[in-house]
Amino acid sequence: MTSTDTCVDLNADLGEGFGRWHLTDDEGLLSVVTSANVACGFHAGDPATMRRVCDLAAERGVRIGAQVSYRDLAGFGRRAMDVPPGELAAEVAYQIGALEVFARAAGARVAYVKPHGALYNRVVHDEEQAGAVVAGVLLAGASLPVLGLPGSRFLDAAGKAGLPVVTEAFADRAYTDGGTLVPRGRDGAVIADPGTVVERSVGLARSGVVTSHSGREIAVRARSLCLHGDTPGAVDLARRVRARLEESGVRVEAFA
Amino acid sequence: MTSTDTCVDLNADLGEGFGRWHLTDDEGLLSVVTSANVACGFHAGDPATMRRVCDLAAERGVRIGAQVSYRDLAGFGRRAMDVPPGELAAEVAYQIGALEVFARAAGARVAYVKPHGALYNRVVHDEEQAGAVVAGVLLAGASLPVLGLPGSRFLDAAGKAGLPVVTEAFADRAYTDGGTLVPRGRDGAVIADPGTVVERSVGLARSGVVTSHSGREIAVRARSLCLHGDTPGAVDLARRVRARLEESGVRVEAFA
Amino acid sequence: MTSTDTCVDLNADLGEGFGRWHLTDDEGLLSVVTSANVACGFHAGDPATMRRVCDLAAERGVRIGAQVSYRDLAGFGRRAMDVPPGELAAEVAYQIGALEVFARAAGARVAYVKPHGALYNRVVHDEEQAGAVVAGVLLAGASLPVLGLPGSRFLDAAGKAGLPVVTEAFADRAYTDGGTLVPRGRDGAVIADPGTVVERSVGLARSGVVTSHSGREIAVRARSLCLHGDTPGAVDLARRVRARLEESGVRVEAFA
Amino acid sequence: MTSTDTCVDLNADLGEGFGRWHLTDDEGLLSVVTSANVACGFHAGDPATMRRVCDLAAERGVRIGAQVSYRDLAGFGRRAMDVPPGELAAEVAYQIGALEVFARAAGARVAYVKPHGALYNRVVHDEEQAGAVVAGVLLAGASLPVLGLPGSRFLDAAGKAGLPVVTEAFADRAYTDGGTLVPRGRDGAVIADPGTVVERSVGLARSGVVTSHSGREIAVRARSLCLHGDTPGAVDLARRVRARLEESGVRVEAFA
Repeated sequence: MTSTDTCVDLNADLGEGFGRWHLTDDEGLLSVVTSANVACGFHAGDPATMRRVCDLAAERGVRIGAQVSYRDLAGFGRRAMDVPPGELAAEVAYQIGALEVFARAAGARVAYVKPHGALYNRVVHDEEQAGAVVAGVLLAGASLPVLGLPGSRFLDAAGKAGLPVVTEAFADRAYTDGGTLVPRGRDGAVIADPGTVVERSVGLARSGVVTSHSGREIAVRARSLCLHGDTPGAVDLARRVRARLEESGVRVEAFA
Repeated sequence: MTSTDTCVDLNADLGEGFGRWHLTDDEGLLSVVTSANVACGFHAGDPATMRRVCDLAAERGVRIGAQVSYRDLAGFGRRAMDVPPGELAAEVAYQIGALEVFARAAGARVAYVKPHGALYNRVVHDEEQAGAVVAGVLLAGASLPVLGLPGSRFLDAAGKAGLPVVTEAFADRAYTDGGTLVPRGRDGAVIADPGTVVERSVGLARSGVVTSHSGREIAVRARSLCLHGDTPGAVDLARRVRARLEESGVRVEAFA
Repeated sequence: MTSTDTCVDLNADLGEGFGRWHLTDDEGLLSVVTSANVACGFHAGDPATMRRVCDLAAERGVRIGAQVSYRDLAGFGRRAMDVPPGELAAEVAYQIGALEVFARAAGARVAYVKPHGALYNRVVHDEEQAGAVVAGVLLAGASLPVLGLPGSRFLDAAGKAGLPVVTEAFADRAYTDGGTLVPRGRDGAVIADPGTVVERSVGLARSGVVTSHSGREIAVRARSLCLHGDTPGAVDLARRVRARLEESGVRVEAFA
Repeated sequence: MTSTDTCVDLNADLGEGFGRWHLTDDEGLLSVVTSANVACGFHAGDPATMRRVCDLAAERGVRIGAQVSYRDLAGFGRRAMDVPPGELAAEVAYQIGALEVFARAAGARVAYVKPHGALYNRVVHDEEQAGAVVAGVLLAGASLPVLGLPGSRFLDAAGKAGLPVVTEAFADRAYTDGGTLVPRGRDGAVIADPGTVVERSVGLARSGVVTSHSGREIAVRARSLCLHGDTPGAVDLARRVRARLEESGVRVEAFA
């Protein structure tokens, strides 16, 4: 692979406040990323915030995605829920539709869907809920691409349903030798050192290779890298990642 | 006016349950009305119910409208709230967008907007909130018609903004000599006798005339009649109203 | 066992409306049961309803229990959630405290705790959540008895923590040969025939014996029988159960 | 008045996060104030946060008060609502009861009640809601003192009902010549200069005198000063206020 045809999308969660509360530096992140996962009101994201984030994203040419979640403000969507598939599909579609209004008002559109938090993790292996999220995307009607983990039930189900699938990787998370994420909570699951995160980003983007938790080089193909926006220094780190990617000849560009 | 060009729309609130709770006989009402005001999740209406009601409405050719509300499940949207206009506009747009997904999935579309409960009453006279609801409809983008009280700030603001306005009347509510509704809670504000409601419906539809609280004949021009769906016998009464309208030569037909 | 020392408590879920929505015939059920499981706002039960139900229960000498739930109005507490134990304990305590105010204002007190819906089912086998609910009861401070399934992790944990445990049985649910409930959704899981429910109630109360799904007589010891209040005819069936119990020499009496 | 018998309470809003979101530096403020207005879940304050704040407050000997609010997470309780008095009283009691559990578990108790945000402002002049809040406090049962604006309907109603009333003043808010607060949003309504806030605090505490918006010295008697905790530098300013009060011979002490 030559550097000329290497490109990567950078995505981050945005608009994750609610009413009086704020979490992410939306303006800062929008100056770095190419895809904005906008919270749609179920784990975060009141309508006025959704509108503001869509306006800012459209202004800067950043792609808008629906970050859909379980209905769980108190738990920030981080508590897995046994939602029956019919309900879950409708909840997903509801959130996409609500965001679509603000994307359209900003002169853009919802360009993809990414599950949030516990739902993201659940649909890696839960076939029923993976199918329900896909059903929700289909209900919303526009054959939207979905963003998820390579090898997940979710991307499988989406692919079978004819939706474009976009794989993503996490430069600040440890990987097992099998290419899955080391669960949060385990020692070393999250990589805190900024320099390491930057180097892993370049490795993932240029060669699809990352060093696993046990020290082996493993393949992790991903069209998009997820940057975290809710930690101190998040925007600075995101800027460094982007700068190093570009210096390395990687084009930073939203997926088609 | 001859009966040949007399037509009236019949609208009712639908889908006003939430999760385990049900309120309206949606199937029954959909066999009578021409316009369904579908709850969008803020005072009632979980996503699965919204989907089901949109499917049923589309199947029967009933027009789907977004019944937008203050965010108030605990108070069923019946408690007026001082929502700042920017927030209110975004909340209205959010609800319309969420419903649009289910309308579209059913092969239909959101065809109009009607405020619910305390918001409906507030925008009769509150210019700021009336403007905010109109701004929310405009955000949602499709120049949707709005349904409201003749003479209300809301219809004024909507008209000035270029939205089609549809006036409505209530056959089961008492009117003052000035043509406004006698406030709920006052003696005689709600007309319980089914025969009287049926006759008033015909009067309103055929000649735009109704007997006021004090016994005078007053003019109340309305393109749509609102039928209440949350009382025992509501569907039967709705059927009688429709039958008598048609016997009287009134075409029962959704507004354009 | 002679009939003279046979007694049983009858419990039912009450106050399971929310704002405009109603579900249970609270007045009817309070004329039959000895223990009222009052919803505390997380799956149902707005404050005004909680107050009303506590007033009615106290008036009739019915014991008031806190029916604690996951925070899930949209799912009526029927969707299992992976709530971290610290959060769950605090949520349980919060609900008990809120109810305590209305019980006390009615001249009574919260006399026991019973988990609702998905939480009830989860703590049958989930040790962590079982412990969290017990921790929540302890936080609330008054060594309250807890109501649950015999053999459940929940009653085990409560017993070890020094809380009085009260076993309960369901006359309208099928049992496996092992004495556990046949899961809802399976054929025959719920017993619809009123006569059968009445006879099973008497068998459970008098001899602690019930016929299993496969036709064997099995032992199910329970100090309390749960009556369902959210089905048509629920109050009539409850009355029949109570009448037949009393005719059979069973005292219907709240647990100590 | 000599300085030896001059004392003042310092109160601040605490625990105003919700789940993942944080707002106030609770630990910092608890090292300064004598009374903690703890959010009870209706505008902010999830159960786990309530527990943590009560534990910290009890540890440091800070008085715990229930900061009761309209049910409005999305608006942070800052949007006035027309809640019927029966509902409002029950909502207030519910919040007090929920907090009581955590105060008691921490070895303390709820020692007073202070309305939050829009409810605080509404009960200055709205007799019906003022009465409803008082009714809610009475429902909760323990003749709790209430904190409010001198001259408000709320303190009037509380006094008539036999509740102890505690007046409070705001060192960082401008006053009219009539002794009421200049409404937020007006020029100069909020005093930003820390030195001025410190001096006004001392004036209010020592002599009950403050300079009005128009430059006149006016009397504002208050047993408690409210410090704001949600601005940058809030804890530092609170420390300076307390230090200067003590240097001036004012005892900083919770009300009885």
